[in-house]
Amino acid sequence: MKSHTEYLVFNTSRRREIRNITPELERVLEKSGVREGLMLVNPMHITASVYVNDAEGGLYQDILELLEKLAPGGRPYHHHQTGEDNGDAHLKRQLLGQQVVLAVTQGRLDFGPWEQVHYAEFDGQRKKRVIVKIIGE
Amino acid sequence: MKSHTEYLVFNTSRRREIRNITPELERVLEKSGVREGLMLVNPMHITASVYVNDAEGGLYQDILELLEKLAPGGRPYHHHQTGEDNGDAHLKRQLLGQQVVLAVTQGRLDFGPWEQVHYAEFDGQRKKRVIVKIIGE
Amino acid sequence: MKSHTEYLVFNTSRRREIRNITPELERVLEKSGVREGLMLVNPMHITASVYVNDAEGGLYQDILELLEKLAPGGRPYHHHQTGEDNGDAHLKRQLLGQQVVLAVTQGRLDFGPWEQVHYAEFDGQRKKRVIVKIIGE
Repeated sequence: MKSHTEYLVFNTSRRREIRNITPELERVLEKSGVREGLMLVNPMHITASVYVNDAEGGLYQDILELLEKLAPGGRPYHHHQTGEDNGDAHLKRQLLGQQVVLAVTQGRLDFGPWEQVHYAEFDGQRKKRVIVKIIGE
Repeated sequence: MKSHTEYLVFNTSRRREIRNITPELERVLEKSGVREGLMLVNPMHITASVYVNDAEGGLYQDILELLEKLAPGGRPYHHHQTGEDNGDAHLKRQLLGQQVVLAVTQGRLDFGPWEQVHYAEFDGQRKKRVIVKIIGE
Repeated sequence: MKSHTEYLVFNTSRRREIRNITPELERVLEKSGVREGLMLVNPMHITASVYVNDAEGGLYQDILELLEKLAPGGRPYHHHQTGEDNGDAHLKRQLLGQQVVLAVTQGRLDFGPWEQVHYAEFDGQRKKRVIVKIIGE
């Protein structure tokens, strides 16, 4: 069994932002040399999501607007009694999905025609890490 | 390490539909010969979910009604500027859950008493694939 | 390839409760002897979630309040025609997230500074199991 671990770093220019990270993941997979296995992609900070969906700008807006409707910012969340102001970011990341596991087949991400992996940041403008862990052979 | 990959194909008769796919997964597991490991079950299209919950028709309705309330169809989503009309389907799949990873123990899906795996289609009436990837030994 | 499986049992004093289970997972990992691999943590009952977020009491309240707003209890869910009264619990667990997969690196859970794993119970006051399955080497 082979395993390979890398840490991607993102620092978004806006507080809330969605970014297609599929090219970075393909580079990590190539370096790993794994042909058959699983890849975990997990944000190491708890105010961000990794999810798979269409790489389309209108959909990014729809996702951000849906999450703002369901878990709006600027509200007096209990979490703010700690001095934080990002309660909505912790909640949004749960609703969108925390992480993904991807299939690796014949050395490639085994995707359908429109599957692309995204990093969704809800409290950015600072360095955040995403772990990529591949196991297989 | 063993790995085994199969692609299930679904073509639902209704646009939105939930279907218990546990029997198909058990057949794939048996063919794989894996006794201890993990099984990833991931829809390869981004307007469908794979999730684990009770195989009960009333709950299927509750799930569809909840998702319709949270991310209703027939709205002018930004995504529709591309010519698509399925913005709600992309959003519903995120809220319900994209994919699952299942434990394989002693050659069986290691489930609690009511756990059943479902395919939830939000933009069906055409062929869609689900990848099943098992790694283990 | 090594694999290791354990079943944690929880019996919450309240019907809805969130509990940090990271220490239990660290003990399971140590017993497993796995240095590099993946750990699946999955509730075996379908009215509970396992998720990763901040171990902060105010946030627990925010999460429970958000889920109560989105999928309230005490409503006439279709699922209740079976005699059950926990329709909301089945729905809440989907919105929060069903399960997590964790990276194991150099014998430790490979976490960011605030990542902690939680068990969220939505229909407790009885024994419930969570499977922990580690594969790696």
